[in-house]
Amino acid sequence: MTAPGRLIGLGVGPGDPELITVKALRLLRESPVVAYFVAKGKKGNAFGIIEAHLQDAQNLMPLVYPVTTEVLPEPLSYEQVISDFYDQAAEDVAAHLHAGRDVAVICEGDPFFYGSYMYLHDRLAHRFEAQVVPGVCSMLGGASVLGVPLVYRNQSLSVLSGVLPHDELKRRLADADAAVIMKLGRNFHKVREVLTELGLAERALYVERATMSNQKIVPFNEVDPMSSPYFSLIIVPGERWQG
Amino acid sequence: MTAPGRLIGLGVGPGDPELITVKALRLLRESPVVAYFVAKGKKGNAFGIIEAHLQDAQNLMPLVYPVTTEVLPEPLSYEQVISDFYDQAAEDVAAHLHAGRDVAVICEGDPFFYGSYMYLHDRLAHRFEAQVVPGVCSMLGGASVLGVPLVYRNQSLSVLSGVLPHDELKRRLADADAAVIMKLGRNFHKVREVLTELGLAERALYVERATMSNQKIVPFNEVDPMSSPYFSLIIVPGERWQG
Repeated sequence: MTAPGRLIGLGVGPGDPELITVKALRLLRESPVVAYFVAKGKKGNAFGIIEAHLQDAQNLMPLVYPVTTEVLPEPLSYEQVISDFYDQAAEDVAAHLHAGRDVAVICEGDPFFYGSYMYLHDRLAHRFEAQVVPGVCSMLGGASVLGVPLVYRNQSLSVLSGVLPHDELKRRLADADAAVIMKLGRNFHKVREVLTELGLAERALYVERATMSNQKIVPFNEVDPMSSPYFSLIIVPGERWQG
Repeated sequence: MTAPGRLIGLGVGPGDPELITVKALRLLRESPVVAYFVAKGKKGNAFGIIEAHLQDAQNLMPLVYPVTTEVLPEPLSYEQVISDFYDQAAEDVAAHLHAGRDVAVICEGDPFFYGSYMYLHDRLAHRFEAQVVPGVCSMLGGASVLGVPLVYRNQSLSVLSGVLPHDELKRRLADADAAVIMKLGRNFHKVREVLTELGLAERALYVERATMSNQKIVPFNEVDPMSSPYFSLIIVPGERWQG
């Protein structure tokens, strides 16, 4: 009997292909199967990051989302569709693992930081050996290109989703020393409103697709709320420590 | 006149030398001067991570902390001593930059995520070209070795310092969907007390020196509060999404 393969959650970083770790690159090259989540008809950000390193003998395994409404309110039916999809994806990956093939699931940013890999991990890590290679997450990629320290000393950092309702977002931001707001897209307008109400708009910085080749930095007050992509984020950096 | 050198904040990752990015490794090798913050009499974690890549021609520049009481309450005198130290360190780095030499300041984890590099950046980035290379931060290194997804979907993540007073820590943790508590050391006892009061001790996971060769994972309730090092962290992962 063949020993089962390993499930590998492989963080490939925020976008700049050079921001992959040496470890992720090694494991990517060693993996006979490379899986990745991707929207229908798209190449996928994670795939674009590692594409140049792939070898002919590697088995590519796109896991194509049946729906893409992550930024919309979610009716039960969406939840069911996506849950069934993860079940099926896990079984497809398990087939390779059973056959003794390692499967590297490449993830933009970090696998355990809002990554879809988590849904495979939760379904498979008790059945197979699993290894996770952490990656540079998008918020740190964002801070680096904006050139702004995120948190000083004993400041608290709040990482928030733009999907949160106005009042919860406001309450959490009012209490934050420093904040990162992700998942903007069509939530941008609401988020800017909240930051403005709190007097935080002056401190807010905005970047789209940080570290990617099509990265765009726009002054916060000049962002067109209709064109803000999902892969954008706002940073409200901690107050500079004068030390 | 020589063109001035570049200030480079170089994230080298959480500890495993393979968790450095390809970009950081390239810039490290290209930098004539390699600077790093370090405690008196120590080698330093960041230095240990990159040591094997150094070349004879590179100029090493240890920036030795005059005091190391980061986890203690800070009287004004400590603040002054450390501020003077950063002023002097910045001038020492500036001397190289003026002479046209790039200076890579290596940082454990990420330069803008609680890193001392920030104090050089704040003093020098308006005078010299500065570039920051983001790194894998310790909390993601921690999640990876604990094998636990950190935050699902629209959950909020609170990154907190163990230095915070009992009541503030309790208030912030009570409101968190998922939390990471850093800077434990002698704060461990207080932090465990707070998590126990909130009924969160069952969910808490603990790791010392995540991804380093001397990493230690200990069940949360068995941690000896007297021996918890500064480089340890607690993760209270977000509730698993059943999707």
